[in-house]
Amino acid sequence: MSHGKQFTLYSNKTGANGWKVAFVLEELGLTYESIYLDFARGEHKAPEYTQYNPNGRIPALIDHRSNDFVIWESNAILLYLIKKYDKENKLGVTNEEDKYKLLQWLFFQASGQGPYFGQAIWFMRFHPEHLPSAIERYQKETQRVLSVLESVLSKQEWLVGNKPTIADISFITWHQKLVERPAVKKLYEEQAKLLAANN
Amino acid sequence: MSHGKQFTLYSNKTGANGWKVAFVLEELGLTYESIYLDFARGEHKAPEYTQYNPNGRIPALIDHRSNDFVIWESNAILLYLIKKYDKENKLGVTNEEDKYKLLQWLFFQASGQGPYFGQAIWFMRFHPEHLPSAIERYQKETQRVLSVLESVLSKQEWLVGNKPTIADISFITWHQKLVERPAVKKLYEEQAKLLAANN
Repeated sequence: MSHGKQFTLYSNKTGANGWKVAFVLEELGLTYESIYLDFARGEHKAPEYTQYNPNGRIPALIDHRSNDFVIWESNAILLYLIKKYDKENKLGVTNEEDKYKLLQWLFFQASGQGPYFGQAIWFMRFHPEHLPSAIERYQKETQRVLSVLESVLSKQEWLVGNKPTIADISFITWHQKLVERPAVKKLYEEQAKLLAANN
Repeated sequence: MSHGKQFTLYSNKTGANGWKVAFVLEELGLTYESIYLDFARGEHKAPEYTQYNPNGRIPALIDHRSNDFVIWESNAILLYLIKKYDKENKLGVTNEEDKYKLLQWLFFQASGQGPYFGQAIWFMRFHPEHLPSAIERYQKETQRVLSVLESVLSKQEWLVGNKPTIADISFITWHQKLVERPAVKKLYEEQAKLLAANN
């Protein structure tokens, strides 16, 4: 890559998962170039991208200072970044049991919150047929997942280790405290600009 | 717990995710007692269980030889088991980059294969209304995920590190080579007996 930065991040202007990775890169002070794939033009399914991520989804990250190592799945990327580059333990945990709990919450985000939220959006905006009972299902499941998080966060401030970690960041769009952090504000402004330029 | 075994595994007779954990416990020669929750009676949503897993889903694992440490989300459990108890590296990988690739495939299973497969089953068997376009969506997505796996497994035998790992096990129901392993055969026989006893 000719951009001279450490990472290339394949992302998308609207999807939450690419922005989560960008947020962690920002918080860790790492340099990266974002490439925003245009889903309407099918850029995420083109061979130029699926050579990196056969799943044809964003995000994917290339680490140019580690032999162009390629990794995809946003929560795997977050783990890669903190394990390799978060030497001050800014967004991770050190206690062994906490490390397993961190994995547990990341998998809950990936298997629970992410898919249900995504399916609610699909049936509300993109499905070719209007299916009220499908929309209702996913809105209810999204509420249920939110109530699981609330049941934990009503008793403690953060999901793991009494500090903000990538576990909280993985639920970023739902988490008011995180949204107030400068790195997140900066990225939200950037996203707003990109979307405005598009319209 | 009075059963004297190292682990208590909360599972369900039909769901794949509990059996995946049982399979890894078997492969590692660890002792465990399975408790099969009855979903029809709402046992997975009862406080006796949600005290361990606030998400009210199976599986959850309690490690009685580690201060009754509790962990849920099947792929987080698999990682816990190999990191802590797979000293001979039977189901894990040692190379650093392979460890990140292992995480990537586990997250792809959790965020892709699992949810789409689960939603296909839901709309085929349990949704109160017959919605052909929703069934079609999830059957197509399930096929798409399968084709992503095939695109990789047509070029190599296993997902990571040229050996069977928990990444392959996480996709267990789809993976013919794994199904032929003795530990899996034993569990499938046990599952068949349990289901037969129920009918």
